[in-house]
Amino acid sequence: MTAQTPLGVAVVGAGYWGPNLIRNFRNAPDWRLVAVVDLDLVRAQEVIGGSAEVLATSDLDEVLAREDVDAVAIATPAGTHRALVERALRAGKHVLVEKPLADDVGSGRSMVESARANDLVLMADHTYCYTPVVQKIRELVEDGSLGDILFIDSVRINLGLVQPDVDVFWDLAPHDLSILDFILPGGLRPTGVAAHGADPLRAGKACVGYLTLPLEGGAMAHVHVNWLSPTKIRQMVIGGSRRTLVWDDLNPQQRLSVFDRGVDLVQQSVDQIERADRAAATISYRLGDTWAPALPEYEALSRMVGEFAGAIREGRTPRTDGASGLRVLSVLEAAQASLRARGALVEVAAETPTLELIR
Amino acid sequence: MTAQTPLGVAVVGAGYWGPNLIRNFRNAPDWRLVAVVDLDLVRAQEVIGGSAEVLATSDLDEVLAREDVDAVAIATPAGTHRALVERALRAGKHVLVEKPLADDVGSGRSMVESARANDLVLMADHTYCYTPVVQKIRELVEDGSLGDILFIDSVRINLGLVQPDVDVFWDLAPHDLSILDFILPGGLRPTGVAAHGADPLRAGKACVGYLTLPLEGGAMAHVHVNWLSPTKIRQMVIGGSRRTLVWDDLNPQQRLSVFDRGVDLVQQSVDQIERADRAAATISYRLGDTWAPALPEYEALSRMVGEFAGAIREGRTPRTDGASGLRVLSVLEAAQASLRARGALVEVAAETPTLELIR
Amino acid sequence: MTAQTPLGVAVVGAGYWGPNLIRNFRNAPDWRLVAVVDLDLVRAQEVIGGSAEVLATSDLDEVLAREDVDAVAIATPAGTHRALVERALRAGKHVLVEKPLADDVGSGRSMVESARANDLVLMADHTYCYTPVVQKIRELVEDGSLGDILFIDSVRINLGLVQPDVDVFWDLAPHDLSILDFILPGGLRPTGVAAHGADPLRAGKACVGYLTLPLEGGAMAHVHVNWLSPTKIRQMVIGGSRRTLVWDDLNPQQRLSVFDRGVDLVQQSVDQIERADRAAATISYRLGDTWAPALPEYEALSRMVGEFAGAIREGRTPRTDGASGLRVLSVLEAAQASLRARGALVEVAAETPTLELIR
Amino acid sequence: MTAQTPLGVAVVGAGYWGPNLIRNFRNAPDWRLVAVVDLDLVRAQEVIGGSAEVLATSDLDEVLAREDVDAVAIATPAGTHRALVERALRAGKHVLVEKPLADDVGSGRSMVESARANDLVLMADHTYCYTPVVQKIRELVEDGSLGDILFIDSVRINLGLVQPDVDVFWDLAPHDLSILDFILPGGLRPTGVAAHGADPLRAGKACVGYLTLPLEGGAMAHVHVNWLSPTKIRQMVIGGSRRTLVWDDLNPQQRLSVFDRGVDLVQQSVDQIERADRAAATISYRLGDTWAPALPEYEALSRMVGEFAGAIREGRTPRTDGASGLRVLSVLEAAQASLRARGALVEVAAETPTLELIR
Repeated sequence: MTAQTPLGVAVVGAGYWGPNLIRNFRNAPDWRLVAVVDLDLVRAQEVIGGSAEVLATSDLDEVLAREDVDAVAIATPAGTHRALVERALRAGKHVLVEKPLADDVGSGRSMVESARANDLVLMADHTYCYTPVVQKIRELVEDGSLGDILFIDSVRINLGLVQPDVDVFWDLAPHDLSILDFILPGGLRPTGVAAHGADPLRAGKACVGYLTLPLEGGAMAHVHVNWLSPTKIRQMVIGGSRRTLVWDDLNPQQRLSVFDRGVDLVQQSVDQIERADRAAATISYRLGDTWAPALPEYEALSRMVGEFAGAIREGRTPRTDGASGLRVLSVLEAAQASLRARGALVEVAAETPTLELIR
Repeated sequence: MTAQTPLGVAVVGAGYWGPNLIRNFRNAPDWRLVAVVDLDLVRAQEVIGGSAEVLATSDLDEVLAREDVDAVAIATPAGTHRALVERALRAGKHVLVEKPLADDVGSGRSMVESARANDLVLMADHTYCYTPVVQKIRELVEDGSLGDILFIDSVRINLGLVQPDVDVFWDLAPHDLSILDFILPGGLRPTGVAAHGADPLRAGKACVGYLTLPLEGGAMAHVHVNWLSPTKIRQMVIGGSRRTLVWDDLNPQQRLSVFDRGVDLVQQSVDQIERADRAAATISYRLGDTWAPALPEYEALSRMVGEFAGAIREGRTPRTDGASGLRVLSVLEAAQASLRARGALVEVAAETPTLELIR
Repeated sequence: MTAQTPLGVAVVGAGYWGPNLIRNFRNAPDWRLVAVVDLDLVRAQEVIGGSAEVLATSDLDEVLAREDVDAVAIATPAGTHRALVERALRAGKHVLVEKPLADDVGSGRSMVESARANDLVLMADHTYCYTPVVQKIRELVEDGSLGDILFIDSVRINLGLVQPDVDVFWDLAPHDLSILDFILPGGLRPTGVAAHGADPLRAGKACVGYLTLPLEGGAMAHVHVNWLSPTKIRQMVIGGSRRTLVWDDLNPQQRLSVFDRGVDLVQQSVDQIERADRAAATISYRLGDTWAPALPEYEALSRMVGEFAGAIREGRTPRTDGASGLRVLSVLEAAQASLRARGALVEVAAETPTLELIR
Repeated sequence: MTAQTPLGVAVVGAGYWGPNLIRNFRNAPDWRLVAVVDLDLVRAQEVIGGSAEVLATSDLDEVLAREDVDAVAIATPAGTHRALVERALRAGKHVLVEKPLADDVGSGRSMVESARANDLVLMADHTYCYTPVVQKIRELVEDGSLGDILFIDSVRINLGLVQPDVDVFWDLAPHDLSILDFILPGGLRPTGVAAHGADPLRAGKACVGYLTLPLEGGAMAHVHVNWLSPTKIRQMVIGGSRRTLVWDDLNPQQRLSVFDRGVDLVQQSVDQIERADRAAATISYRLGDTWAPALPEYEALSRMVGEFAGAIREGRTPRTDGASGLRVLSVLEAAQASLRARGALVEVAAETPTLELIR
């Protein structure tokens, strides 16, 4: 395989999300779409629109047996991920999998270990991380523009469809958590998770939810997800020791603002100042400029499939690898446990020590 | 005492808030300002601006002995409230007291009981409750415009002065809690309190805080207070079964919006529908008009001192009575306990059963 | 022809706008797309995507000769409209034509007269008029909610492509003018037009433009179009004697606001009041509620092709008929004359007295 | 007179604006308030609040005769300015005068010439020019951050009091015009003025107004003033060849935004490119960052009285001198003439060639 030859990919699942993957694999120079697999063969055929170059089939084994399929993208319900992913890995295929990675941490961990054992790429489709704005935020965190992260407050509320199978945490919070995992140095590794949910309509599940995630070093992340809000808000504030960033996703004219404003704690000898005045004496304010960086325009999914190809070709961990998907899943599972424990702070399942790199 | 004669009032404490009270008592037809008391006599004299009609003194006993003083307004630090209030009550004076009512629930409860025993008005200066917008919100809750309350989300964040003596909960949340107490039918009586705080600057106290307050019937209130945010947000969303309201205090052109939008849960027999489709089948959406009621313009403090006079003259409980202040205080104290217990849900101290009416 | 049988339509011009028309005619139950005509046959074939049911051709005569073609939609450059429209009318076809109706008033008037002489529908594709928001605005004007119209201020500014062939007036103002024509009772009939343009980049044409349109009865409409603005604004304020409406097209959460606020002039006898106080005495303010009506969601073009079918079937004038297109064109031509006359107020060419109804 | 000694000032006129001047002169270290003059002696006394240090009088001559009065500030109706200013100048006093400078250009010119002849400072109280935001805008224009100015669009609309004596141009446009004069290099010197007004309420004067001001070099300024708008907008867009600035005065969180966005016209040989493609070929876009500079906080009037003192002490022209006031007045008078001429472009009265410097 050289960089010049496109990689062959098969998409499994032609339902809600599959067609988006299919369109992006088709348009990507790195990829050749070889097959679309769906239990509903008619659906698979419809999605490829009668093209003779792409195989529509309901037989996954047929596809996994093909030499010209280098990778498989799984866009089926979470409960089916583990079995499908492990079949693909056993067949020697690299795998991209929809979020959430699985529906329990045990399955997720097994998938990550299988990929590692087979020396194959396992990537989580955390699409949001590949948007221009989140890429820029990661850059600003990495290059130190924000300083140390002090707090992150994320709000994702809207009049949303009450889902039949999942609560508001599993429906909406994966977006926030995958973004947090992407931008936090070292990934999302909270020291605990507390979840509070409300079900005021008696729908049988939380429709309003709050996640509190204490981080190392005294910082805290907090997520508000809500299906019942008549106003739509998608906003994340990332407070840093040097600068603070506000991402307002519904303001296309100024999606990202970086404030050179903040509170500084000046280190002084406690002896020098009276105890009562201590805080006042050691706190100072910066009220500097605001800056809204220009963001390029591209489709997040196209960049995501590019990263998948890059990781395969270069034999490296992709930016949103299986371990990342597993960290998100672990927080969701801990949140579930906290909900059952009336909001008590719950520990997040330890990752296996070998997750970090695939080879 | 007839409705025609103004009531006599003395203001105790000429510091930060006292002058606002003094100005409003002076301008109110219901009141005659008789005296200003401050340990710093010069300060008291400055505040009255050399008027011969008002006594400036540092001797509270002298003032409490006067027949022409019907009421005392206390604007001193919270730690001094109990002693001052009880002295005034013993002298037969009605009392208005700054928030928080006291610095611990025991003191607050004692003050409320003393007022009751002496058949005197004890009122908490929850100024925000007397703003045009909060008055309107209470009206909309009372007349059923919102239906049952499903959730309340309140955000009060800003680059704020890190206070030397209190954390961000005690500094900012009393505003939100007193408003919640004012607008919730029956007052703020959460079934528990969970508090999460962060001190990422190592200032020795929480600078970022979240309060979760489950309410009877499955509803939930949540409060976000933050001293470290470069953007100022003061927003409250009150989701109801009929309509939802958004109060954006920083948008003077449309401070209050009422959305005739929401999610309905249609009651159906579970037998009639397959379990999997149940939620989908029984949820429906309303996407109706938005309405922004015109708000009158007046100063909240002037309405507050009017309510104080009205309660005294009519021998009735004021709208923000001592019991209301005590409920706010109880939540703050429970929040403190929750913080120490790493965010565990903590019960709120029971009110005494006799708080409801002063006579 | 019965209401049950779809009408046959041919689209002429498969360039920028044609494909949108084609898609909407295809999806409309009222219509059957019979043919797509383009000088570039390959382009016509591409646009229909290899469908066997639609004829792709470069021969307009072949299409006009067909019995199953009831109507023709013209989506070619403005300079070609007159000849194409008149050919189609002579062949007995109803015609829909892109805006602007023509590139000069003489041509436009001739087209309108030909349609009338042949008793055929001539409709202008003023797409914006069929959006949910403009439909609602027309409704509010018609039902008297706004009262008499006092002023209209329309702003349409953005960083726009400097067009090679037209100035900013011809590029952007047709949107505003066609909307004004649609919502003003009796259509857009200003008593004059004054146009001011600036070409600060020396691009050879106005890139910033202002149109002033005095209306009967002392009202005034004003339009600001601008290719050089870094912020995008699309806002129209319609001031009425009863209420005032603000349409902010870039605020999807509250696109339309109706303010029950305004200034009233109370009629009084001049003798009764001193001259100096006259205005003060006779002006009063209303500061009532704001109301944002819910808007349905549909595609404007689909409603537009529905109106075209309705007008043909019912033998009536369509809402945006040729006369409407001609009024917009007349204002644009007068604006051009005003620009040449350094902004002097220029009269708008009289319409022929017979334009009103097609039969 | 040394820099250490405060200058003595008398304020003439204790009506609407006078008290603001009085407060600022009192607080300024540069000034000593010596007297307040008003025909209504009681009013003058009230305003100084019984201070023994300031003279309250209705006798201007008494004040002008005093040695300790260096300067006089005139806050009376525009029609009285000329006589009062010239009396003060004849008495050797420096003069600050409310806007508009006078009620006709002839009076204004005479005042400016008198000041010059007497070698005294004549300053116009263009308060807005001393706000932090306008000071910053001037800085950005002066230091070349914006490049050449291409267009300026100013909107100042609100539900306003219909004034008994002036129309909407004289009431509101002086703000915009004085700001334009302050920020444009060389001051506001339009090549003509076109004014369009509407009086749809039949109030006897324009309540809605538009001013078009072509500038040297193809640029254009435009002002929209309106008493009938239910929404309040105070926005100025200044388009430059390098950057464009938006000042939104009702957004305290981001009052000023500087966009590194714009349209560039690349100079090319016309021979090299086909005429039809010319514009497309030579236009390019910049879509850079947005920047919101931090603004200091201070009261504009305090800075204004500081500038008045500075000009007197240093014997220099103040930033908003009489000539500036005269240019604003000339535009207003030309606008009046244009209104009478149905919006025709009217020339602005020439300034006398000697206005530039007072000494």
